[in-house]
Amino acid sequence: MSKKLKYGMVGGSLDAFIGEVHRKAAALDSKFSLVAGAFSSSPDKSKKTGEALGIDPNRTYGSYKEMMEKESQLPEDERIDVVSIVTPNHVHFDPAKMALEHGFHVIIDKPLAFSTQEARDLKEVVDDTGLVLALTHTYTGYPMVKEAKEYVREGKLGKIRQVYVEYPQGWLSVPLEEEGNKQASWRTDPERSGAGGSIGDIGTHAANLAEYVTGLNITHICADINTKVEGRKLDDNAAALLKFEDGATGVLMVSQIATGEENDIKVRVYGEKAGVEWKQSDQNTLLYKPLEGPHQIIRAGTGYLSDLAQANTRTPAGHPEGYLEAFANIYVAFHQAVVDHQSGEYKSASDYDFPDVVDGIRGMVFVDTMIESSKSETKWTPIEL
Amino acid sequence: MSKKLKYGMVGGSLDAFIGEVHRKAAALDSKFSLVAGAFSSSPDKSKKTGEALGIDPNRTYGSYKEMMEKESQLPEDERIDVVSIVTPNHVHFDPAKMALEHGFHVIIDKPLAFSTQEARDLKEVVDDTGLVLALTHTYTGYPMVKEAKEYVREGKLGKIRQVYVEYPQGWLSVPLEEEGNKQASWRTDPERSGAGGSIGDIGTHAANLAEYVTGLNITHICADINTKVEGRKLDDNAAALLKFEDGATGVLMVSQIATGEENDIKVRVYGEKAGVEWKQSDQNTLLYKPLEGPHQIIRAGTGYLSDLAQANTRTPAGHPEGYLEAFANIYVAFHQAVVDHQSGEYKSASDYDFPDVVDGIRGMVFVDTMIESSKSETKWTPIEL
Amino acid sequence: MSKKLKYGMVGGSLDAFIGEVHRKAAALDSKFSLVAGAFSSSPDKSKKTGEALGIDPNRTYGSYKEMMEKESQLPEDERIDVVSIVTPNHVHFDPAKMALEHGFHVIIDKPLAFSTQEARDLKEVVDDTGLVLALTHTYTGYPMVKEAKEYVREGKLGKIRQVYVEYPQGWLSVPLEEEGNKQASWRTDPERSGAGGSIGDIGTHAANLAEYVTGLNITHICADINTKVEGRKLDDNAAALLKFEDGATGVLMVSQIATGEENDIKVRVYGEKAGVEWKQSDQNTLLYKPLEGPHQIIRAGTGYLSDLAQANTRTPAGHPEGYLEAFANIYVAFHQAVVDHQSGEYKSASDYDFPDVVDGIRGMVFVDTMIESSKSETKWTPIEL
Amino acid sequence: MSKKLKYGMVGGSLDAFIGEVHRKAAALDSKFSLVAGAFSSSPDKSKKTGEALGIDPNRTYGSYKEMMEKESQLPEDERIDVVSIVTPNHVHFDPAKMALEHGFHVIIDKPLAFSTQEARDLKEVVDDTGLVLALTHTYTGYPMVKEAKEYVREGKLGKIRQVYVEYPQGWLSVPLEEEGNKQASWRTDPERSGAGGSIGDIGTHAANLAEYVTGLNITHICADINTKVEGRKLDDNAAALLKFEDGATGVLMVSQIATGEENDIKVRVYGEKAGVEWKQSDQNTLLYKPLEGPHQIIRAGTGYLSDLAQANTRTPAGHPEGYLEAFANIYVAFHQAVVDHQSGEYKSASDYDFPDVVDGIRGMVFVDTMIESSKSETKWTPIEL
Repeated sequence: MSKKLKYGMVGGSLDAFIGEVHRKAAALDSKFSLVAGAFSSSPDKSKKTGEALGIDPNRTYGSYKEMMEKESQLPEDERIDVVSIVTPNHVHFDPAKMALEHGFHVIIDKPLAFSTQEARDLKEVVDDTGLVLALTHTYTGYPMVKEAKEYVREGKLGKIRQVYVEYPQGWLSVPLEEEGNKQASWRTDPERSGAGGSIGDIGTHAANLAEYVTGLNITHICADINTKVEGRKLDDNAAALLKFEDGATGVLMVSQIATGEENDIKVRVYGEKAGVEWKQSDQNTLLYKPLEGPHQIIRAGTGYLSDLAQANTRTPAGHPEGYLEAFANIYVAFHQAVVDHQSGEYKSASDYDFPDVVDGIRGMVFVDTMIESSKSETKWTPIEL
Repeated sequence: MSKKLKYGMVGGSLDAFIGEVHRKAAALDSKFSLVAGAFSSSPDKSKKTGEALGIDPNRTYGSYKEMMEKESQLPEDERIDVVSIVTPNHVHFDPAKMALEHGFHVIIDKPLAFSTQEARDLKEVVDDTGLVLALTHTYTGYPMVKEAKEYVREGKLGKIRQVYVEYPQGWLSVPLEEEGNKQASWRTDPERSGAGGSIGDIGTHAANLAEYVTGLNITHICADINTKVEGRKLDDNAAALLKFEDGATGVLMVSQIATGEENDIKVRVYGEKAGVEWKQSDQNTLLYKPLEGPHQIIRAGTGYLSDLAQANTRTPAGHPEGYLEAFANIYVAFHQAVVDHQSGEYKSASDYDFPDVVDGIRGMVFVDTMIESSKSETKWTPIEL
Repeated sequence: MSKKLKYGMVGGSLDAFIGEVHRKAAALDSKFSLVAGAFSSSPDKSKKTGEALGIDPNRTYGSYKEMMEKESQLPEDERIDVVSIVTPNHVHFDPAKMALEHGFHVIIDKPLAFSTQEARDLKEVVDDTGLVLALTHTYTGYPMVKEAKEYVREGKLGKIRQVYVEYPQGWLSVPLEEEGNKQASWRTDPERSGAGGSIGDIGTHAANLAEYVTGLNITHICADINTKVEGRKLDDNAAALLKFEDGATGVLMVSQIATGEENDIKVRVYGEKAGVEWKQSDQNTLLYKPLEGPHQIIRAGTGYLSDLAQANTRTPAGHPEGYLEAFANIYVAFHQAVVDHQSGEYKSASDYDFPDVVDGIRGMVFVDTMIESSKSETKWTPIEL
Repeated sequence: MSKKLKYGMVGGSLDAFIGEVHRKAAALDSKFSLVAGAFSSSPDKSKKTGEALGIDPNRTYGSYKEMMEKESQLPEDERIDVVSIVTPNHVHFDPAKMALEHGFHVIIDKPLAFSTQEARDLKEVVDDTGLVLALTHTYTGYPMVKEAKEYVREGKLGKIRQVYVEYPQGWLSVPLEEEGNKQASWRTDPERSGAGGSIGDIGTHAANLAEYVTGLNITHICADINTKVEGRKLDDNAAALLKFEDGATGVLMVSQIATGEENDIKVRVYGEKAGVEWKQSDQNTLLYKPLEGPHQIIRAGTGYLSDLAQANTRTPAGHPEGYLEAFANIYVAFHQAVVDHQSGEYKSASDYDFPDVVDGIRGMVFVDTMIESSKSETKWTPIEL
């Protein structure tokens, strides 16, 4: 096992959701130590979170600015290597930029930024500093998603013809944001979430998953975006027809008002020679559907998987791994990149199997294009990077 | 059990698929006797089919015209009551019209006709003769589809917000029509199938299912239709964004090049208060997903179902019924209408739970609108009945 | 299609369950015509049933004795070919014997008889008359059960090591027999059901399924039989350890007090080279689990199946067939045997793929041995045919 | 979050399986720090493992004896609080006893010891020292297993009637132990594994799961134990009829030669009022099957769960948690007990929801009784604690 990296966290106070997910993902494989944090814009809340997490009080900061400044002045073997950013979307760009500029590698929850402009600007900082930035598009961390990607890459599906990707949730079927639900409040608030509601929160995941598995970029979108819950300020339901490179077509469906649905992101890809299907509710299975012969149940943890899938599994088949492990797989890949960077071997994020700043820009442009298309009376709107 | 009806069949020679399905569906509940037939445009083939089916050779006819004429001259208690039409689409209108004009009730495989004009003309004949015409949109014959409809009707879902309907098949992933496959040949031939390929063959089923369950008509379509297999003359893949009455939106996906897929038509409907999900691969289950509390597995054959669902099941829960039973349910409902007609109690097809000539016109207009929308650069195309 | 056979039914009045199942199974493929019946021990009920079924009133008889006598005096081309016996267990032997002695072939619901002695006696009558007798152990009629059998026969599993067979039902979790439920009443009454409750009603199905698929006979039983519902006169729950020929071992579980369970008979067989799994709740799937490589989802209606499985399916993959079709498959096989008998080509029931009188005796001995074992303090009780 | 505990590990070198599972489970929730270890009986291997794990070389010990002695001499705030024992079964008792005698709390992989005598002796040490000992029967760590237990405890099932528990694996279908597979070698070696093969390795899990969920002890066993792979020294397949307290009966099935099976431990419990079903392959679901009305799909992470189940879940419904999280749940409960012990509030392991030394003894006695029963010609063998 290689060097344990020290990290500081921006956001993730005790009542947040995704911050604790990041902490568990980072902890699972013992490759990261949480040693610092600016856990909240409220210094008091930050302090209490730091205490609860057993962080040295001297390294629980009142603001991320303070954290960047103070940590960068610590001796090299003491200070943090990495900053993990888990704030709402409108507080992504500033701390990420600042972290990079202070020499820290960055891992950041998606979407990359509040706006596409911010995302593009952030890419410049990444390029200028040469540091590592990873974006936690969780679902591409699942081993069977990686296996699906490998199937496509190896040509088992032949030329891709049709893609269905969906992400139905039901938790926003009622106006939770009016009942003080913290998760609902910022996600439905354009001041904190950005231009997209469901399309930003989960639509970007769906688009990223489809592009990751197929290896094809979406080129055109024909979208219908709705706000189904009265009074809501952002979209909560969307669907789009898609065109991909190379003549593939597809459908994207995301909803946060699909009453009763949990979180079942699912992708189906059909090529000339076979189809594959993966869904989070049966996360350790990839269904492989060849043109001839029976469907096969490809399972995580088995010996017949690709190296990539095997490297992203911790236990033998039948020991279910889930969401936190998928998340941790991104942390592990990011860890490798940072360690390589520290030893001078790092060249580019694209050499590693984690979503990077380019994926982040794609996600922001996806949101913009969905909105533009939905407003347009013309059928197809191109995605312009 | 009420009177057994006598029927003659148009089409359905021994090498056809859907003719034998109709025969089994008609036979299952012992409500119909097959006593006559014009099973093929080839008199020899017709004769051989009649022999194999044990039909009186005098009533195996060389053409449907002959059947109509000769049967109508038989004494009332001998001649057929009903004509079942199971030919390819281009031979739907003529025999249906002729049957009605000779006083026979008609049950006809979908789509109703070769063109929308034919469909409209046929409605006039139905209206003029006052006879019964049923269309075998099989999937609405499933008891759990009926239960879904009842859930919507009773308000268990509240106002409908979003609908997903899909019908993925993979059997046309290769150009079977070039290999002499009879089923593939006529379905991909515009001269026999009409303007629609996959959208006519299975898209009409999907649209009909969505409208049946929700009780809402589709009002606008934004479609993308493709022909993925080179050289094929009709579409084999399509997707559409949908608008329904009352503000509901939806997505329709049909494909015959979804490699490896069998025949898994599926519908999901989400309302303000709950969602429901049904799919043919688990045909005896309706998933009910309320806003609060656990999902429920609603099962065919149980005592807690609606009267409508119970009336369309033959066995207790756990004794799987399937496609042929769903098909037979349409025959049973049609039987009741005909018997009522014979006793003077029949008023309108809409009093019975089977697809009728109006559904048939809707299906034809759906196909036209899909094609028009796909060619249009404007996003939304209205459905104009 | 070969000759349509005429049959008369014993039992199966309108309020019975299995009689109507037999009628639908016989009707589905248009190979049988119901032309006579003694549908109830109450002549009035019999008459009403005959009327409802559209039977010639002259051939609706007040007793099965009358039916046998009168039918056998009809001209050969008018009289019934076959008697279908669907009465409770205590009225199996007499009508079966009488039917055979009057020259009629017999198809009979399981179990074969009220007692093992009756079953043995009936075999003698079958042997003496040389007529065809089929027993409707429904579950072996499923195409994927037949495919499982073929997998074993072809050696795909290697030597069989372990078998699990289970049949959990919940409908007798409460004393329905005290509430006037007709199905519960006779099944829990030793005067009508025989020595076994759940072990006779469904245990015989489970044992038959295990033996059919493996091709191995059960040789020893170690059983625990219980009556869980207070006051019930017969067993409603049982389990047994099994020894098969050739060193295979197994477990059999049957229950009618498995609260909430429907009817999910399931068999799993493990050999040196692979395992297979089939269950009625997913009746068109056989899971094939080889030693190496992914599990395969073997599906009814596909082109890669054995001839035997293909011959027992009516529709392409994805068009679910179920319980009635499985039942009908037994009628079809029986039809072939009778037709062969009539043309002089029939030799032995074992040449056909339907359960026969020998399977019936095995079922009765199974029940006896289960009871004997359950009472014994010794672990293993041999099955003695 | 409360105090982070320091622990040392016995066993768990880099090529072991369960040691790494323990490390990840301990790390996930940031409640434990691995600071010491005697990772192998080979000091060199231990040293290399310690290096790879980033352990202070001074605290990577050549033997567990050395670890206990040296650690106990460190200052209280430096030395380990807890010892985690992950060695093969024959090296459980000695390090556990030694750890307790040096004042360390113990968490130990199952089975508790090599023999029942060792297990009983260990209980005495636990009683004498008053320290905390937890046993990692993983499956009871799953939130939906806990929910099942709560359903039974709250009376939702009524009086329990029938229990089915099964644990089928296929990985030992071939003699892997002859091919140098480390996991297979010690598990099939009576010198390292103890008297039981499959019954010890996985049978104890199955028995523990059944007893945990029902709250009922198994009182009598009627077992059939086999060794199906020629030349194997321990059993690889077993089944048993069970009697529980209070008149419940059951069946236990375990196999390591169920070819193709992964690791799908499953339990079904049927009471007078309802049944429940849980299986590891769908670990976040509990099926609840009431006497009347539809089955319910009870899901981890939902708001309607019991406090116990909610406390053992980290993410909202639809974010799958798995085996490592279930394992971690045991570590979390153990952590609470140790922290309480350190603050003087600990009374008894039975106040916490983790398997303890009494469960460990039950497991050992289960193995002994299975073996005794299998050898016996008498049907029932009592479990004598």
